[in-house]
Amino acid sequence: MSELRDGDSIGGFTYREIPTAEVEAIADRFAPLTEAIRRLNDVVIRSNADDATVAGATAMIDELTAVLGRGAEPGPIGTAFNHEGHSWSWSNAAVGARNAVAPPLEVDFVDDTHVVGRAYLGNAYEGPPGKVHGGVSALLLDHLMGVTASHRHTQTAFTGTLTMRYESPLPLGKVTLHGELVKQEGRKIEVEARIEAADGTVAIRAHGIFITPRWAAGLWEDR
Amino acid sequence: MSELRDGDSIGGFTYREIPTAEVEAIADRFAPLTEAIRRLNDVVIRSNADDATVAGATAMIDELTAVLGRGAEPGPIGTAFNHEGHSWSWSNAAVGARNAVAPPLEVDFVDDTHVVGRAYLGNAYEGPPGKVHGGVSALLLDHLMGVTASHRHTQTAFTGTLTMRYESPLPLGKVTLHGELVKQEGRKIEVEARIEAADGTVAIRAHGIFITPRWAAGLWEDR
Repeated sequence: MSELRDGDSIGGFTYREIPTAEVEAIADRFAPLTEAIRRLNDVVIRSNADDATVAGATAMIDELTAVLGRGAEPGPIGTAFNHEGHSWSWSNAAVGARNAVAPPLEVDFVDDTHVVGRAYLGNAYEGPPGKVHGGVSALLLDHLMGVTASHRHTQTAFTGTLTMRYESPLPLGKVTLHGELVKQEGRKIEVEARIEAADGTVAIRAHGIFITPRWAAGLWEDR
Repeated sequence: MSELRDGDSIGGFTYREIPTAEVEAIADRFAPLTEAIRRLNDVVIRSNADDATVAGATAMIDELTAVLGRGAEPGPIGTAFNHEGHSWSWSNAAVGARNAVAPPLEVDFVDDTHVVGRAYLGNAYEGPPGKVHGGVSALLLDHLMGVTASHRHTQTAFTGTLTMRYESPLPLGKVTLHGELVKQEGRKIEVEARIEAADGTVAIRAHGIFITPRWAAGLWEDR
Protein backbone atom coordinates (compact mmCIF):
# COMPACT_ATOMS: atom_id res chain seq x y z
CA MET A 1 0.00 0.00 0.00
CA SER A 2 3.02 2.28 -0.22
CA GLU A 3 1.50 4.15 -3.19
CA LEU A 4 -1.48 5.40 -1.10
CA ARG A 5 -1.46 8.94 0.31
CA ASP A 6 -3.59 10.40 3.07
CA GLY A 7 -6.95 11.37 1.57
CA ASP A 8 -6.79 8.98 -1.43
CA SER A 9 -10.05 7.21 -2.24
CA ILE A 10 -10.72 3.61 -3.30
CA GLY A 11 -14.32 2.96 -4.31
CA GLY A 12 -15.40 5.85 -2.08
CA PHE A 13 -13.39 4.62 0.93
CA THR A 14 -10.79 7.12 2.14
CA TYR A 15 -7.23 6.17 3.07
CA ARG A 16 -6.08 7.99 6.22
CA GLU A 17 -2.60 7.93 7.73
CA ILE A 18 -3.95 7.58 11.27
CA PRO A 19 -2.72 4.67 13.42
CA THR A 20 -5.43 2.41 14.82
CA ALA A 21 -4.53 3.44 18.38
CA GLU A 22 -5.31 7.05 17.51
CA VAL A 23 -8.58 6.09 15.80
CA GLU A 24 -9.56 4.32 19.01
CA ALA A 25 -8.62 7.38 21.08
CA ILE A 26 -10.89 9.53 18.88
CA ALA A 27 -13.70 7.00 19.30
CA ASP A 28 -13.21 7.08 23.09
CA ARG A 29 -13.28 10.91 23.04
CA PHE A 30 -16.58 11.18 21.14
CA ALA A 31 -18.47 8.09 22.37
CA PRO A 32 -19.54 9.65 25.72
CA LEU A 33 -20.69 12.82 23.90
CA THR A 34 -22.71 10.73 21.45
CA GLU A 35 -24.24 8.75 24.32
CA ALA A 36 -25.08 12.03 26.07
CA ILE A 37 -26.89 13.24 22.93
CA ARG A 38 -28.85 9.97 22.79
CA ARG A 39 -29.98 10.51 26.42
CA LEU A 40 -30.82 14.17 25.70
CA ASN A 41 -32.92 13.19 22.70
CA ASP A 42 -34.77 10.56 24.73
CA VAL A 43 -35.68 13.21 27.31
CA VAL A 44 -36.77 15.80 24.72
CA ILE A 45 -39.38 13.31 23.48
CA ARG A 46 -40.82 13.02 27.02
CA SER A 47 -40.15 16.45 28.53
CA ASN A 48 -42.79 18.70 30.11
CA ALA A 49 -40.40 21.67 30.39
CA ASP A 50 -41.80 25.18 29.85
CA ASP A 51 -41.08 27.63 27.02
CA ALA A 52 -38.25 29.45 28.79
CA THR A 53 -36.43 26.27 29.81
CA VAL A 54 -36.71 24.78 26.33
CA ALA A 55 -35.59 28.03 24.65
CA GLY A 56 -32.61 28.24 27.01
CA ALA A 57 -31.60 24.65 26.24
CA THR A 58 -31.91 25.33 22.51
CA ALA A 59 -29.60 28.36 22.73
CA MET A 60 -27.07 26.39 24.78
CA ILE A 61 -27.02 23.55 22.25
CA ASP A 62 -26.53 26.00 19.38
CA GLU A 63 -23.49 27.36 21.24
CA LEU A 64 -22.05 23.86 21.73
CA THR A 65 -22.62 23.15 18.03
CA ALA A 66 -20.66 26.29 17.11
CA VAL A 67 -17.75 25.35 19.41
CA LEU A 68 -17.59 21.74 18.23
CA GLY A 69 -17.92 22.87 14.60
CA ARG A 70 -14.75 25.01 14.57
CA GLY A 71 -12.34 23.24 12.22
CA ALA A 72 -14.77 20.37 11.62
CA GLU A 73 -14.64 18.31 8.43
CA PRO A 74 -17.10 19.58 5.82
CA GLY A 75 -18.79 16.18 5.42
CA PRO A 76 -19.97 13.75 4.33
CA ILE A 77 -17.07 11.93 5.95
CA GLY A 78 -17.84 8.42 4.66
CA THR A 79 -15.75 5.42 5.63
CA ALA A 80 -11.99 5.53 6.18
CA PHE A 81 -9.28 2.90 6.48
CA ASN A 82 -5.60 2.92 7.44
CA HIS A 83 -2.40 1.00 6.64
CA GLU A 84 -3.18 -1.45 9.45
CA GLY A 85 -6.30 -2.57 7.57
CA HIS A 86 -8.54 -0.98 10.22
CA SER A 87 -11.64 0.83 8.93
CA TRP A 88 -14.10 3.16 10.63
CA SER A 89 -17.33 4.96 9.81
CA TRP A 90 -18.25 7.58 12.41
CA SER A 91 -21.40 8.61 10.57
CA ASN A 92 -23.04 5.30 9.71
CA ALA A 93 -26.80 5.48 10.43
CA ALA A 94 -26.87 1.96 11.91
CA VAL A 95 -23.51 1.51 13.63
CA GLY A 96 -21.86 4.97 13.71
CA ALA A 97 -20.00 5.48 17.01
CA ARG A 98 -20.29 9.27 16.62
CA ASN A 99 -23.88 9.38 15.34
CA ALA A 100 -26.73 9.61 17.87
CA VAL A 101 -29.18 8.55 15.13
CA ALA A 102 -27.58 5.07 15.27
CA PRO A 103 -28.78 3.01 18.30
CA PRO A 104 -25.88 1.90 17.70
CA LEU A 105 -26.12 -1.64 16.36
CA GLU A 106 -23.20 -3.85 17.45
CA VAL A 107 -22.27 -6.52 14.94
CA ASP A 108 -20.04 -9.57 15.47
CA PHE A 109 -19.07 -12.47 13.25
CA VAL A 110 -19.70 -15.84 14.91
CA ASP A 111 -17.93 -17.47 11.96
CA ASP A 112 -17.40 -16.57 8.26
CA THR A 113 -21.09 -16.91 7.42
CA HIS A 114 -22.89 -16.16 10.70
CA VAL A 115 -23.34 -12.72 12.22
CA VAL A 116 -25.02 -11.61 15.45
CA GLY A 117 -26.25 -8.07 16.05
CA ARG A 118 -27.31 -6.44 19.30
CA ALA A 119 -28.95 -3.10 20.04
CA TYR A 120 -30.91 -1.36 22.76
CA LEU A 121 -33.87 0.43 21.17
CA GLY A 122 -35.29 3.09 23.47
CA ASN A 123 -38.04 5.70 23.06
CA ALA A 124 -36.39 7.25 19.98
CA TYR A 125 -37.04 4.08 17.98
CA GLU A 126 -40.78 3.84 18.62
CA GLY A 127 -43.40 3.25 15.94
CA PRO A 128 -46.62 1.65 17.26
CA PRO A 129 -47.13 2.49 20.95
CA GLY A 130 -44.39 0.82 23.01
CA LYS A 131 -43.10 -1.08 19.97
CA VAL A 132 -40.07 -0.68 17.73
CA HIS A 133 -40.86 1.10 14.44
CA GLY A 134 -41.00 -1.61 11.74
CA GLY A 135 -38.76 0.60 9.60
CA VAL A 136 -36.10 0.69 12.32
CA SER A 137 -36.08 -3.12 12.29
CA ALA A 138 -35.72 -2.90 8.50
CA LEU A 139 -32.78 -0.49 8.90
CA LEU A 140 -30.97 -2.81 11.30
CA LEU A 141 -31.72 -5.93 9.23
CA ASP A 142 -30.49 -4.22 6.04
CA HIS A 143 -27.23 -3.31 7.76
CA LEU A 144 -26.67 -6.69 9.43
CA MET A 145 -27.39 -8.52 6.17
CA GLY A 146 -24.91 -6.35 4.27
CA VAL A 147 -22.25 -7.21 6.84
CA THR A 148 -23.20 -10.90 6.63
CA ALA A 149 -22.84 -10.78 2.83
CA SER A 150 -19.27 -9.48 3.25
CA HIS A 151 -18.12 -12.96 4.38
CA ARG A 152 -16.09 -11.54 7.27
CA HIS A 153 -15.12 -8.43 5.25
CA THR A 154 -13.54 -10.39 2.40
CA GLN A 155 -15.96 -8.99 -0.21
CA THR A 156 -17.90 -5.79 -0.84
CA ALA A 157 -21.59 -6.36 -1.54
CA PHE A 158 -24.55 -4.07 -2.13
CA THR A 159 -28.21 -4.82 -1.48
CA GLY A 160 -30.10 -6.07 -4.55
CA THR A 161 -33.47 -7.07 -3.12
CA LEU A 162 -34.66 -7.36 0.44
CA THR A 163 -37.85 -9.13 1.52
CA MET A 164 -39.16 -8.84 5.06
CA ARG A 165 -41.97 -10.78 6.70
CA TYR A 166 -43.35 -9.07 9.80
CA GLU A 167 -44.38 -11.83 12.22
CA SER A 168 -45.01 -10.06 15.52
CA PRO A 169 -44.64 -6.63 17.14
CA LEU A 170 -41.22 -5.97 18.68
CA PRO A 171 -41.28 -4.34 22.14
CA LEU A 172 -38.86 -1.47 22.77
CA GLY A 173 -35.74 -2.61 24.64
CA LYS A 174 -32.98 -5.09 23.90
CA VAL A 175 -33.12 -6.75 20.49
CA THR A 176 -30.93 -9.41 18.89
CA LEU A 177 -30.39 -10.02 15.18
CA HIS A 178 -29.01 -13.10 13.44
CA GLY A 179 -27.70 -13.19 9.87
CA GLU A 180 -26.56 -16.15 7.79
CA LEU A 181 -24.92 -16.24 4.37
CA VAL A 182 -26.88 -19.16 2.92
CA LYS A 183 -25.71 -19.24 -0.71
CA GLN A 184 -23.11 -17.68 -2.98
CA GLU A 185 -22.91 -17.95 -6.78
CA GLY A 186 -20.21 -15.75 -8.26
CA ARG A 187 -21.08 -12.14 -7.44
CA LYS A 188 -24.59 -13.03 -6.14
CA ILE A 189 -24.97 -13.66 -2.43
CA GLU A 190 -28.07 -14.79 -0.52
CA VAL A 191 -28.55 -13.91 3.12
CA GLU A 192 -31.26 -14.83 5.64
CA ALA A 193 -31.79 -12.93 8.85
CA ARG A 194 -34.18 -12.31 11.73
CA ILE A 195 -34.69 -9.81 14.52
CA GLU A 196 -35.84 -11.02 17.93
CA ALA A 197 -37.22 -9.48 21.10
CA ALA A 198 -35.44 -9.89 24.46
CA ASP A 199 -37.52 -13.04 25.14
CA GLY A 200 -36.48 -14.64 21.83
CA THR A 201 -39.75 -14.03 19.97
CA VAL A 202 -38.99 -13.49 16.27
CA ALA A 203 -40.46 -10.19 15.06
CA ILE A 204 -39.29 -10.11 11.43
CA ARG A 205 -37.67 -12.66 9.12
CA ALA A 206 -35.75 -11.31 6.14
CA HIS A 207 -34.25 -12.64 2.92
CA GLY A 208 -31.80 -10.62 0.87
CA ILE A 209 -29.92 -10.88 -2.38
CA PHE A 210 -26.65 -8.97 -2.42
CA ILE A 211 -24.44 -8.23 -5.40
CA THR A 212 -20.71 -7.62 -5.55
CA PRO A 213 -20.21 -4.93 -8.20
CA ARG A 214 -17.67 -5.72 -10.95
CA TRP A 215 -15.32 -2.94 -9.76
CA ALA A 216 -15.26 -4.44 -6.28
CA ALA A 217 -14.87 -8.13 -7.20
CA GLY A 218 -11.37 -9.10 -6.14
CA LEU A 219 -10.69 -5.65 -4.67
CA TRP A 220 -9.63 -7.02 -1.31
CA GLU A 221 -7.90 -10.16 -2.66
CA ASP A 222 -5.62 -7.87 -4.75
CA ARG A 223 -4.54 -5.78 -1.80
CA MET B 1 -66.56 10.26 22.73
CA SER B 2 -68.01 11.47 26.03
CA GLU B 3 -67.13 8.18 27.74
CA LEU B 4 -63.37 8.70 27.18
CA ARG B 5 -61.20 10.05 29.99
CA ASP B 6 -57.73 11.56 29.81
CA GLY B 7 -55.20 8.71 29.69
CA ASP B 8 -57.63 6.07 28.36
CA SER B 9 -56.16 3.78 25.71
CA ILE B 10 -57.73 2.41 22.49
CA GLY B 11 -55.55 -0.16 20.75
CA GLY B 12 -52.49 1.41 22.34
CA PHE B 13 -53.45 4.95 21.35
CA THR B 14 -53.89 7.30 24.28
CA TYR B 15 -56.78 9.75 24.62
CA ARG B 16 -55.61 13.12 25.96
CA GLU B 17 -57.79 16.07 26.91
CA ILE B 18 -55.49 18.58 25.23
CA PRO B 19 -56.97 20.96 22.62
CA THR B 20 -55.28 20.86 19.20
CA ALA B 21 -54.11 24.47 19.63
CA GLU B 22 -52.17 23.46 22.74
CA VAL B 23 -50.70 20.41 20.99
CA GLU B 24 -49.45 22.75 18.28
CA ALA B 25 -47.98 25.11 20.86
CA ILE B 26 -46.07 22.21 22.40
CA ALA B 27 -44.81 21.18 18.94
CA ASP B 28 -43.67 24.78 18.32
CA ARG B 29 -41.87 24.82 21.68
CA PHE B 30 -39.89 21.64 21.08
CA ALA B 31 -39.32 21.74 17.29
CA PRO B 32 -36.43 24.28 17.46
CA LEU B 33 -34.77 22.24 20.24
CA THR B 34 -35.09 19.06 18.18
CA GLU B 35 -33.66 20.83 15.13
CA ALA B 36 -30.78 22.12 17.28
CA ILE B 37 -30.03 18.54 18.39
CA ARG B 38 -30.04 17.40 14.74
CA ARG B 39 -27.45 20.12 13.92
CA LEU B 40 -25.39 19.21 17.00
CA ASN B 41 -25.36 15.54 16.02
CA ASP B 42 -24.29 16.42 12.46
CA VAL B 43 -21.32 18.37 13.83
CA VAL B 44 -20.30 15.66 16.33
CA ILE B 45 -19.86 13.27 13.39
CA ARG B 46 -17.45 15.72 11.71
CA SER B 47 -15.81 17.49 14.66
CA ASN B 48 -12.04 17.75 15.23
CA ALA B 49 -12.45 19.22 18.75
CA ASP B 50 -9.94 18.18 21.41
CA ASP B 51 -10.51 16.08 24.57
CA ALA B 52 -11.23 19.03 26.89
CA THR B 53 -13.73 20.66 24.53
CA VAL B 54 -15.58 17.40 23.94
CA ALA B 55 -15.62 16.53 27.65
CA GLY B 56 -16.96 20.01 28.47
CA ALA B 57 -19.72 19.67 25.86
CA THR B 58 -20.64 16.24 27.23
CA ALA B 59 -20.99 17.59 30.78
CA MET B 60 -23.09 20.53 29.54
CA ILE B 61 -25.45 18.21 27.65
CA ASP B 62 -25.84 15.96 30.70
CA GLU B 63 -26.89 19.07 32.67
CA LEU B 64 -29.46 20.05 30.02
CA THR B 65 -30.79 16.48 30.04
CA ALA B 66 -31.26 16.67 33.83
CA VAL B 67 -33.09 20.02 33.58
CA LEU B 68 -35.37 18.93 30.73
CA GLY B 69 -36.01 15.61 32.46
CA ARG B 70 -37.54 17.09 35.62
CA GLY B 71 -41.21 16.08 35.57
CA ALA B 72 -40.85 14.32 32.22
CA GLU B 73 -43.18 11.49 31.19
CA PRO B 74 -41.66 8.07 31.97
CA GLY B 75 -42.01 6.85 28.38
CA PRO B 76 -42.65 5.26 26.03
CA ILE B 77 -45.16 7.97 25.17
CA GLY B 78 -46.65 6.36 22.05
CA THR B 79 -49.34 8.06 19.99
CA ALA B 80 -52.05 10.28 21.44
CA PHE B 81 -55.29 11.72 20.11
CA ASN B 82 -57.84 14.26 21.34
CA HIS B 83 -61.56 14.97 21.10
CA GLU B 84 -60.96 17.02 17.94
CA GLY B 85 -59.73 13.88 16.15
CA HIS B 86 -56.19 15.24 16.08
CA SER B 87 -53.40 12.73 16.74
CA TRP B 88 -49.70 13.18 17.45
CA SER B 89 -46.64 11.02 17.96
CA TRP B 90 -43.67 13.00 19.29
CA SER B 91 -41.42 9.94 19.41
CA ASN B 92 -41.98 8.31 16.03
CA ALA B 93 -38.62 7.22 14.54
CA ALA B 94 -39.61 8.39 11.04
CA VAL B 95 -41.81 11.45 11.56
CA GLY B 96 -41.47 12.40 15.24
CA ALA B 97 -41.43 16.19 15.66
CA ARG B 98 -39.61 15.83 18.99
CA ASN B 99 -37.21 13.06 17.98
CA ALA B 100 -33.84 14.00 16.45
CA VAL B 101 -33.46 10.42 15.19
CA ALA B 102 -36.28 11.17 12.70
CA PRO B 103 -35.09 13.23 9.68
CA PRO B 104 -38.14 14.00 9.98
CA LEU B 105 -40.11 12.55 7.08
CA GLU B 106 -43.01 14.80 6.01
CA VAL B 107 -45.97 12.90 4.61
CA ASP B 108 -48.94 14.30 2.64
CA PHE B 109 -51.93 12.68 1.00
CA VAL B 110 -52.32 13.73 -2.65
CA ASP B 111 -55.65 11.87 -2.70
CA ASP B 112 -57.12 8.88 -0.80
CA THR B 113 -54.66 6.41 -2.35
CA HIS B 114 -51.58 8.53 -3.19
CA VAL B 115 -49.04 9.78 -0.67
CA VAL B 116 -45.94 11.91 -1.13
CA GLY B 117 -43.08 12.00 1.39
CA ARG B 118 -40.20 14.44 1.64
CA ALA B 119 -37.07 14.49 3.77
CA TYR B 120 -33.64 16.04 3.90
CA LEU B 121 -31.10 13.32 4.70
CA GLY B 122 -27.81 14.81 5.94
CA ASN B 123 -24.60 13.25 7.27
CA ALA B 124 -26.40 11.35 10.03
CA TYR B 125 -28.16 9.16 7.44
CA GLU B 126 -25.03 7.99 5.61
CA GLY B 127 -24.29 4.39 4.68
CA PRO B 128 -21.95 4.02 1.68
CA PRO B 129 -19.70 7.10 1.33
CA GLY B 130 -21.83 10.13 0.42
CA LYS B 131 -24.93 7.96 0.00
CA VAL B 132 -28.04 7.38 2.09
CA HIS B 133 -27.90 4.15 4.15
CA GLY B 134 -30.07 1.61 2.34
CA GLY B 135 -31.69 0.81 5.67
CA VAL B 136 -32.70 4.45 6.15
CA SER B 137 -34.48 4.31 2.80
CA ALA B 138 -36.16 1.12 4.04
CA LEU B 139 -37.24 2.90 7.24
CA LEU B 140 -38.80 5.80 5.32
CA LEU B 141 -40.44 3.50 2.76
CA ASP B 142 -41.90 1.30 5.52
CA HIS B 143 -43.39 4.35 7.20
CA LEU B 144 -44.74 5.97 4.03
CA MET B 145 -46.29 2.70 2.89
CA GLY B 146 -48.00 2.23 6.25
CA VAL B 147 -49.51 5.70 5.93
CA THR B 148 -50.53 4.95 2.33
CA ALA B 149 -52.27 1.75 3.49
CA SER B 150 -54.33 3.81 5.95
CA HIS B 151 -56.42 5.21 3.05
CA ARG B 152 -56.22 8.75 4.44
CA HIS B 153 -56.34 7.53 8.05
CA THR B 154 -59.65 5.68 7.62
CA GLN B 155 -58.13 2.29 8.54
CA THR B 156 -55.33 0.95 10.76
CA ALA B 157 -52.96 -1.40 8.95
CA PHE B 158 -49.78 -3.21 9.95
CA THR B 159 -46.95 -4.35 7.69
CA GLY B 160 -47.25 -7.99 6.58
CA THR B 161 -44.46 -8.29 4.00
CA LEU B 162 -42.23 -5.69 2.43
CA THR B 163 -40.08 -6.26 -0.65
CA MET B 164 -37.51 -3.72 -1.77
CA ARG B 165 -35.53 -3.63 -5.00
CA TYR B 166 -32.42 -1.45 -4.75
CA GLU B 167 -31.92 0.13 -8.19
CA SER B 168 -29.31 2.84 -7.66
CA PRO B 169 -27.37 4.55 -4.86
CA LEU B 170 -29.18 7.52 -3.29
CA PRO B 171 -27.02 10.60 -2.70
CA LEU B 172 -27.38 12.38 0.66
CA GLY B 173 -29.63 15.44 0.44
CA LYS B 174 -33.26 15.97 -0.51
CA VAL B 175 -35.27 12.83 -1.21
CA THR B 176 -38.85 12.31 -2.34
CA LEU B 177 -41.04 9.26 -1.78
CA HIS B 178 -44.23 8.24 -3.54
CA GLY B 179 -46.72 5.68 -2.25
CA GLU B 180 -49.82 4.24 -3.93
CA LEU B 181 -52.51 1.98 -2.53
CA VAL B 182 -52.88 -0.31 -5.56
CA LYS B 183 -55.27 -3.01 -4.28
CA GLN B 184 -57.53 -3.76 -1.36
CA GLU B 185 -59.31 -7.04 -0.60
CA GLY B 186 -61.01 -7.06 2.77
CA ARG B 187 -58.36 -6.61 5.44
CA LYS B 188 -55.46 -7.10 2.94
CA ILE B 189 -53.99 -4.00 1.35
CA GLU B 190 -51.27 -3.77 -1.33
CA VAL B 191 -49.04 -0.72 -1.61
CA GLU B 192 -46.32 0.23 -4.09
CA ALA B 193 -43.75 2.91 -3.40
CA ARG B 194 -40.44 4.38 -4.47
CA ILE B 195 -37.78 6.70 -3.12
CA GLU B 196 -36.07 9.16 -5.46
CA ALA B 197 -33.00 11.39 -5.40
CA ALA B 198 -33.30 15.17 -5.86
CA ASP B 199 -32.81 14.70 -9.64
CA GLY B 200 -35.70 12.20 -9.85
CA THR B 201 -33.55 9.05 -10.15
CA VAL B 202 -35.37 6.14 -8.50
CA ALA B 203 -33.16 4.50 -5.86
CA ILE B 204 -35.48 1.82 -4.46
CA ARG B 205 -38.87 0.43 -5.53
CA ALA B 206 -40.94 -1.27 -2.87
CA HIS B 207 -44.02 -3.48 -2.68
CA GLY B 208 -45.84 -4.11 0.57
CA ILE B 209 -48.74 -6.13 1.85
CA PHE B 210 -50.48 -4.61 4.85
CA ILE B 211 -53.07 -6.21 7.08
CA THR B 212 -55.82 -4.60 9.13
CA PRO B 213 -56.04 -6.63 12.36
CA ARG B 214 -59.49 -7.90 13.31
CA TRP B 215 -59.59 -5.69 16.42
CA ALA B 216 -58.96 -2.61 14.29
CA ALA B 217 -61.32 -3.34 11.39
CA GLY B 218 -64.14 -0.84 11.70
CA LEU B 219 -62.49 0.91 14.66
CA TRP B 220 -62.63 4.33 13.06
CA GLU B 221 -65.98 3.83 11.32
CA ASP B 222 -67.55 3.12 14.74
CA ARG B 223 -66.27 6.29 16.32
